[in-house]
Amino acid sequence: MDFQTEYKKRTDEIEKVITAYLPKEEGYQKTVMEAMNYSFLAGGKRLRPMLMWETYRLFGGEAKVIEPFMAAMEMIHTYSLVHDDLPAMDNDEYRRGKETTWKVYGEAMGILAGDALLTYAFETAAKAFDLEPQNPGLGKAMQILAGKAGIFGMVGGQVVDVESENDTSMTKEKLDFIYRLKTSALMESSMRIGAVLAGADQEEQNAIGEIAGKVGLAFQIQDDILDVTSTMEVLGKPIGSDEKNHKITYVTYEGLKKAKEDVARLSEDAIAQLEGLSVKNEFLTELLRYLIFREK
Amino acid sequence: MDFQTEYKKRTDEIEKVITAYLPKEEGYQKTVMEAMNYSFLAGGKRLRPMLMWETYRLFGGEAKVIEPFMAAMEMIHTYSLVHDDLPAMDNDEYRRGKETTWKVYGEAMGILAGDALLTYAFETAAKAFDLEPQNPGLGKAMQILAGKAGIFGMVGGQVVDVESENDTSMTKEKLDFIYRLKTSALMESSMRIGAVLAGADQEEQNAIGEIAGKVGLAFQIQDDILDVTSTMEVLGKPIGSDEKNHKITYVTYEGLKKAKEDVARLSEDAIAQLEGLSVKNEFLTELLRYLIFREK
Repeated sequence: MDFQTEYKKRTDEIEKVITAYLPKEEGYQKTVMEAMNYSFLAGGKRLRPMLMWETYRLFGGEAKVIEPFMAAMEMIHTYSLVHDDLPAMDNDEYRRGKETTWKVYGEAMGILAGDALLTYAFETAAKAFDLEPQNPGLGKAMQILAGKAGIFGMVGGQVVDVESENDTSMTKEKLDFIYRLKTSALMESSMRIGAVLAGADQEEQNAIGEIAGKVGLAFQIQDDILDVTSTMEVLGKPIGSDEKNHKITYVTYEGLKKAKEDVARLSEDAIAQLEGLSVKNEFLTELLRYLIFREK
Repeated sequence: MDFQTEYKKRTDEIEKVITAYLPKEEGYQKTVMEAMNYSFLAGGKRLRPMLMWETYRLFGGEAKVIEPFMAAMEMIHTYSLVHDDLPAMDNDEYRRGKETTWKVYGEAMGILAGDALLTYAFETAAKAFDLEPQNPGLGKAMQILAGKAGIFGMVGGQVVDVESENDTSMTKEKLDFIYRLKTSALMESSMRIGAVLAGADQEEQNAIGEIAGKVGLAFQIQDDILDVTSTMEVLGKPIGSDEKNHKITYVTYEGLKKAKEDVARLSEDAIAQLEGLSVKNEFLTELLRYLIFREK
């Protein structure tokens, strides 16, 4: 398997699948639909839908029921970026080289577009009930989707992160909490939903949850490492932004050496655990390796 | 039946049911939980959960499966108020005599608390899958909950409303659109979810949808009428706020006389249609009458 060729091919497939769920830009509420689609189509690696799909395939899933959940997951990820960029939050005017949603459509529409994307994520996921009503994992998939996006998942991590700027009382435990919730949560829910909808048993679901937790944590630490060691040319965004924002990161807290060791250890653990399962998906194994050791 | 006594009794019951679903204020993310609960407990008539429960009872429903959906609906209503009040939106510092959420917790936390409430609404509703997994209406109830809160429901109406300030090109069609989506949508979804979860057939669901649409429209027109004719003492908030905000309302567009006639006509239609169903709930009939002809 040539990983890069396969990766490109699957990214294109995913783009087709998830954009098919975007709303048509029409009617009196056209502006918010434009703002939603602008945000969603502004780029991104579509990692979460890819992790979901590949985990679904790992457990033998091959139906369309996974597709609305893939789109929903990317909508949730997108809304979180739209709201993060708002003036009252990070006040970012550019993301991935493009103007942020609020910068193009105004602050009120930035708030509403995020709200609309979040709501549309659940509207989209709920379409799965029409595609495969007999799938016994649908209720649980909805629970995971909402649960890992909320106060015990992404939003919870985001809140603590916002409150922790210039926090001199930062502890290892608190830092782990932020990382586990802020980034890992959506990666974990992506992989868990893939497993649940493919009919994985409880033990397999738990294993996938643990693997995803390690991958998510390693992914976020690697992000911090790149913020220190990469160049703007490679990364496509200013480096040193964490330091500028007085963010305490894993790298500032543990040091670069320990951070790199932890990334290596977490990813080895995750891949060993994945390879210990009775089912195989070679591409998923390679994908985890690629995500963690990426250079941008 | 003494309506006022029953109304009070049921409001108390609902308060108990829905507040049981609020998150405990604990852990690192405590602040956002406090902000969520502050917003949720700031008052409100709990109309939407009441409409849901009474419609559920109308069709013979008597299980707990309705409860997470009642709480979820009120959370969605609450999040919409929290975000509406933000500085970039209506910039309101007070609601129901209390400081608004962003005023107490800051603008960033106001955005996050709204996001958290919206996500928690779906997390809460999804708990119904554990309570009554065999209920065949659960998937459809999730579809209605999300659909009527989003771009083809409440958010869609809100967007057009925001864009229509000082809109000299306002038409009757557009005004109806705003009213149908902005207020009616959640009342309609409340009643539809009650019907679906109680096992009402398709024809009954459609009738409930029509009744709710009329009630919602009449309710919003009455709101506009009160904004012109009531006093601050009765209403508990400044009157004339629509004029101050240059809002084109049903009353400015159609005139007070026609507005009052339409409220009467819509409510008569709705109640006649409700009484034409083969099932009865005397309290629900009285409730619709009360909601429409309320004085605050």
